[in-house]
Amino acid sequence: MAKKLHFEDLEVGMRFESRPMEVTGEEVLQFARRYDPQPFHIDPVAAKDTFFREWVASGWHTTALSMRLVVETVPIEGGIIGGGVEELRWPNALKPGDTIRLVVEVIEKRTLKSRGDVGLVKVRMTTLNQRGEPVQTMIPNLFAPLRAAAVPAPG
Amino acid sequence: MAKKLHFEDLEVGMRFESRPMEVTGEEVLQFARRYDPQPFHIDPVAAKDTFFREWVASGWHTTALSMRLVVETVPIEGGIIGGGVEELRWPNALKPGDTIRLVVEVIEKRTLKSRGDVGLVKVRMTTLNQRGEPVQTMIPNLFAPLRAAAVPAPG
Repeated sequence: MAKKLHFEDLEVGMRFESRPMEVTGEEVLQFARRYDPQPFHIDPVAAKDTFFREWVASGWHTTALSMRLVVETVPIEGGIIGGGVEELRWPNALKPGDTIRLVVEVIEKRTLKSRGDVGLVKVRMTTLNQRGEPVQTMIPNLFAPLRAAAVPAPG
Repeated sequence: MAKKLHFEDLEVGMRFESRPMEVTGEEVLQFARRYDPQPFHIDPVAAKDTFFREWVASGWHTTALSMRLVVETVPIEGGIIGGGVEELRWPNALKPGDTIRLVVEVIEKRTLKSRGDVGLVKVRMTTLNQRGEPVQTMIPNLFAPLRAAAVPAPG
């Protein structure tokens, strides 16, 4: 099992990069039919007469797929637990058939007055398509446990 | 068909409220297995030994369900199209079996220098559980088409 990172291990400037992941049209339809059933997400033909002028994935699908990649890519002890998001943008639409990858950079970290067992790590998460264009940028705060607060192992 | 709202129709202080929607454990599992496969979301037993101390839905599932409700609830001409999110918080975890509803309030609106056919409407979207506790708060900007920019109907 890979070594999991505590708050103390995460330094400003650290960078993580995910595997590439293809996003199929079938998956775009499945997500959108349940969570964002609008013509530009669920109907490739009708999409041509909308704001987007073409069939695109839901922004919330982009977010969900990016979550999948961050869970695989950033090995924080106890898991990826969001303490809120400061900014979320979709500079380019994610399109069916695109292949995305995620880049995560640590940009700030701080301990909390309210509790001594976890700190907050602010990261910039950028989701790129196969041409290197950003389809999503996000600045979430992630909880990370302090090693110092851990109970010592027996023996 | 219900009358759809243009930029001019959306006034600061307007408020929309969704139907209630139950979130089943089966759905929590399905979403999390695909997009957020962590023990506190996919394993009701193992969840007890995590940060959350119980089985909870993914924050990104809360977001996706809230998108479903906003699509049903706010009848903007051309659809619900996000121009980015300024803030996103999960003050309480969404739990399997909860029933949520969404409240949307218009808090600001502005036209754009870059294009004359749409404006941006800033809203506060609050997702509440069956006890009226917020499980999500979000401040997105939504695009809304200007009626003034529409091509006049023939005749």
